[in-house]
Amino acid sequence: MNTAAIYHRPESEYAYLYDQETMHVRLKTAKGDIQQVWLLHGDPYNLELEEWYKKPLAMTKILSTNVYDYWFVEVTAPFKRLSYGFSLEGSDGLKAFFGDHGLFPMEEEALQIANNYFRMPYFHEVDRFKAPEWVKETVWYQIFPERFANGDPKNDPKNVLPWNSKDPDRQDYFGGDLQGVLDHLDYLEELGINGIYFCPIFKASSNHKYDTIDYLTIDPDFGDEAVFKKLVSECHKRGIKVMLDAVFNHMGDESPQWQDVLEHGQASPYADWFHVNEFPATYKEGRDFEDAYDLTYDTFAFTPHMPKLNTANPEVQEYLLNVARYWIEEFDIDAWRLDVANEVDHVFWKRFRQTCDAAKKDFYILGEIWHSSQSWLQGDEFHAVMNYAYTDAILDYFVKKRIPVTKMMAEINNQMMLYRDQTNQMQFNILDSHDTPRLLTETKEDKDLAKQVQAFTYIQPGVPCLYYGDEIGLTGGMDPDCRKCMVWEKEKQDQDLLKFTQDLIAVRRKEQKILSEGSTHWVQVSEVSGVIIYERLYGGNVLRGAFNTGIYPATIELVGETLLDNLATLGEQTANLQPKGFILMKG
Amino acid sequence: MNTAAIYHRPESEYAYLYDQETMHVRLKTAKGDIQQVWLLHGDPYNLELEEWYKKPLAMTKILSTNVYDYWFVEVTAPFKRLSYGFSLEGSDGLKAFFGDHGLFPMEEEALQIANNYFRMPYFHEVDRFKAPEWVKETVWYQIFPERFANGDPKNDPKNVLPWNSKDPDRQDYFGGDLQGVLDHLDYLEELGINGIYFCPIFKASSNHKYDTIDYLTIDPDFGDEAVFKKLVSECHKRGIKVMLDAVFNHMGDESPQWQDVLEHGQASPYADWFHVNEFPATYKEGRDFEDAYDLTYDTFAFTPHMPKLNTANPEVQEYLLNVARYWIEEFDIDAWRLDVANEVDHVFWKRFRQTCDAAKKDFYILGEIWHSSQSWLQGDEFHAVMNYAYTDAILDYFVKKRIPVTKMMAEINNQMMLYRDQTNQMQFNILDSHDTPRLLTETKEDKDLAKQVQAFTYIQPGVPCLYYGDEIGLTGGMDPDCRKCMVWEKEKQDQDLLKFTQDLIAVRRKEQKILSEGSTHWVQVSEVSGVIIYERLYGGNVLRGAFNTGIYPATIELVGETLLDNLATLGEQTANLQPKGFILMKG
Repeated sequence: MNTAAIYHRPESEYAYLYDQETMHVRLKTAKGDIQQVWLLHGDPYNLELEEWYKKPLAMTKILSTNVYDYWFVEVTAPFKRLSYGFSLEGSDGLKAFFGDHGLFPMEEEALQIANNYFRMPYFHEVDRFKAPEWVKETVWYQIFPERFANGDPKNDPKNVLPWNSKDPDRQDYFGGDLQGVLDHLDYLEELGINGIYFCPIFKASSNHKYDTIDYLTIDPDFGDEAVFKKLVSECHKRGIKVMLDAVFNHMGDESPQWQDVLEHGQASPYADWFHVNEFPATYKEGRDFEDAYDLTYDTFAFTPHMPKLNTANPEVQEYLLNVARYWIEEFDIDAWRLDVANEVDHVFWKRFRQTCDAAKKDFYILGEIWHSSQSWLQGDEFHAVMNYAYTDAILDYFVKKRIPVTKMMAEINNQMMLYRDQTNQMQFNILDSHDTPRLLTETKEDKDLAKQVQAFTYIQPGVPCLYYGDEIGLTGGMDPDCRKCMVWEKEKQDQDLLKFTQDLIAVRRKEQKILSEGSTHWVQVSEVSGVIIYERLYGGNVLRGAFNTGIYPATIELVGETLLDNLATLGEQTANLQPKGFILMKG
Repeated sequence: MNTAAIYHRPESEYAYLYDQETMHVRLKTAKGDIQQVWLLHGDPYNLELEEWYKKPLAMTKILSTNVYDYWFVEVTAPFKRLSYGFSLEGSDGLKAFFGDHGLFPMEEEALQIANNYFRMPYFHEVDRFKAPEWVKETVWYQIFPERFANGDPKNDPKNVLPWNSKDPDRQDYFGGDLQGVLDHLDYLEELGINGIYFCPIFKASSNHKYDTIDYLTIDPDFGDEAVFKKLVSECHKRGIKVMLDAVFNHMGDESPQWQDVLEHGQASPYADWFHVNEFPATYKEGRDFEDAYDLTYDTFAFTPHMPKLNTANPEVQEYLLNVARYWIEEFDIDAWRLDVANEVDHVFWKRFRQTCDAAKKDFYILGEIWHSSQSWLQGDEFHAVMNYAYTDAILDYFVKKRIPVTKMMAEINNQMMLYRDQTNQMQFNILDSHDTPRLLTETKEDKDLAKQVQAFTYIQPGVPCLYYGDEIGLTGGMDPDCRKCMVWEKEKQDQDLLKFTQDLIAVRRKEQKILSEGSTHWVQVSEVSGVIIYERLYGGNVLRGAFNTGIYPATIELVGETLLDNLATLGEQTANLQPKGFILMKG
């Protein structure tokens, strides 16, 4: 038995309250090493009386990676307290008990000792990770406001370029604004999305607005408070939620606060708003506009124009929390997306969470974090993170062909086991964004491949987000190229792709319950044929996806009703699936 | 290579800020499986430019258990941000890279991908786990007030028994009080302790006072606010810190709040102060006074007289936080010990921590938790827990002979690797308490064995706590027997044991720096001879303990100066150490 590989951590994603009465328990073991696991559990105060360790509860092997097996079981506790440990039978036939003090022989002597068990001391609803229902039901649409639509030429920035007259450079302006979004809500409604994630809209000097000058003002290039209020209200009328982008890690260097620091140095009332290591705040110019060296202050990356905010300063906290509250209370927004969320301290994010919870029920908080994010997802900071780590595995296999299918499966399963199920149901699944090349460019403009990888992504746990324009065939490499102007002329839009996207979104929304809460099953994963059969199960229903990632056509067994397909010839019982084709079925 | 056993978790005890500029990194691997580990680390934003993965930093194998090896290294980061991963060389000669997406071949292709690394996104001082210096310097003395000394017969409870006239039963009263403690501060000062942990002193009906009636009143049997104020002030004059016991998990059933619930049921203003699952609050009597069944309300264990408080209720929070603040601000106490701390919610404890931090600088918070406690020790709840899990391993080996020495070592090392070094330096090490049999009873009144196990415990990381009376030879089985009256007649006190305890405390206090912050080394652990050589290293100094736990005399090499010994015959270079003997040396 590979005892060194057995892993559990109480009060974490391995042991947590799922709903008020149900606790989820997971155990990690080395792949293929353990035949069966049972949970021994009961009330900590009646171990002696009830000898509940004599009533083992079988756990299920729910997921495997190339290295691990994951075991799972749900339990309840009549007195809201739980002691628990694991009884294991190895593939070598050996038996063992695993608990809070490690491994013991499977003998009464060890099982009778109360301290040998792990503990969930009490089921506290207030500590439970909670998932707003509406988030699970949402398909997001990401808008980069400067490039979506120009609805009001009166607020165009000076030096504005004609719409879509060229591929964008770093300092180009094309005049997109909030009125442009208002003008196209019918389009978005028809597309089927029901949440908009806006890149920053507050006053800033760049076209991307991640260098905020004033958090309490709509950027004049984009409109004003009145048009934004109308936009939120119109969205809500159509059942569309609104998420704004909060850049709280740093400010723009043109902000009055930073300008005051530059002018007055240590004497500035804002001297402690930032991380100035030595006054005056200076730097030497680096390779480009966004690079510097010998900085005497902390910044985002090495960008001298984005001085890092000192969120441990109570004044800064009050300022930013007021911003958070203002846009919720005055404009009724539904969610904040937090830029560079990982580089801001936890104390601040906990206060931020409390502020948002107090301001609006079921408010959603999404952090931009690219790496494993357990520390932020314990239930008192964010609800989810931008799920790059998960979707990167999908892109690496389907599109970039960098990893074998088993590695993708391993990585997806590992990512899922990093978080509670509630988190997985709200993770923000994106195949591209304003920070990455566009999907169609990654697929080298192979539309079928783009459709296939999207279909696979939309049936994963979590909520999908579509980057504006992907649905009509917009292309673009790494930013700023991925921030091209949206195309509104119907004849220049890829209508086939648009129809496909509408259909895919419709499937995601119709089958939301199973796609949010269903368990995941890799029915078939073949390195040889490249055929992947992947299922979601919930309440007796199954949603099955078949994907041909190989180079030869494949025959696929059909189950139930076909929801959506591409490059498939459907027969009675089976279908012929071409390479890059897929079928989504429901049984 | 046992890849399934390799374990790391960012932002946990495996990766944390030790001081403002230093990060500690740990890695767990299967015992004997890996030859060498290197840390690859650098700034996340200049991976490409600096290719810092080409400059490996060797990690040290600091501890091993029967199953794992633990690797460690300290690092700094010029820009307060760190990306890091592990380069491993297996005992089988294979090489691998381990990072945020698992294992990869040790090839540039994997090392060049920024997302393959773990992250410490920014060194936030506000998120760092902080350890008050004074706690590390403290040797605690636990007083059960009803049994320490009767200094004021005027406040004796009715039915008081003559001091020490019998072994205590559950409902006995002997008249101990706060004036009794005041009267014996000279004794405590001479003993050398510099912290007193008081079991509850607030108004309650039992002799142990864990069933609080009024948190804002000193129990009249113990004295009043004036005598307590004087006691704290006298303690502080002598450099002795004062820790009180906060029983916030539950209240006594004689409290006015619970009485009101009993009387008015759901109509009581206190109806939501507790966890009443069904009104009226009732129960059926169980096996004894402290047992019940068919309870319609939640309690501590199954004790009907201790209804559980609803700490998620803001009114209850304000009430208890006010209590916490009151005794700090009005009486200047230095620490709270939290009873049944694990069964109270985290949201409450975080507010509690903030309240205490705001009320007094370097305030210490100690939780009563018997199992692994990472969730409470992240830096924003407790500083330490009562370290039963650690000292149980010591008792199980030295005293109860229940486990082999290798298991003790494994368990001690495992416990240490559950927490950050700052936590380990403040863990509350107890060999007995009001909740366990006394040490001398556990050793079957073998004084030499008691001395040996105390000497071993006092040189562990963490702070020792002496249970009142142990130093003069008090005995007692499981409670209430372990709560006998203190013996004050010199001729009835074990003067030899008292002298020994004074000497041991003096060593702990004199060598505090090395014992608090030194690394730990098992120089010799022999199942055959039973000789244990255990070292602490700090700043070029070594404190070495030799313990003969075998049945034959052993020859021990002497180093430096001998600090304390028992059953040892010291020669020039070596000593003869009898079974149950020990030598503490400093080189």
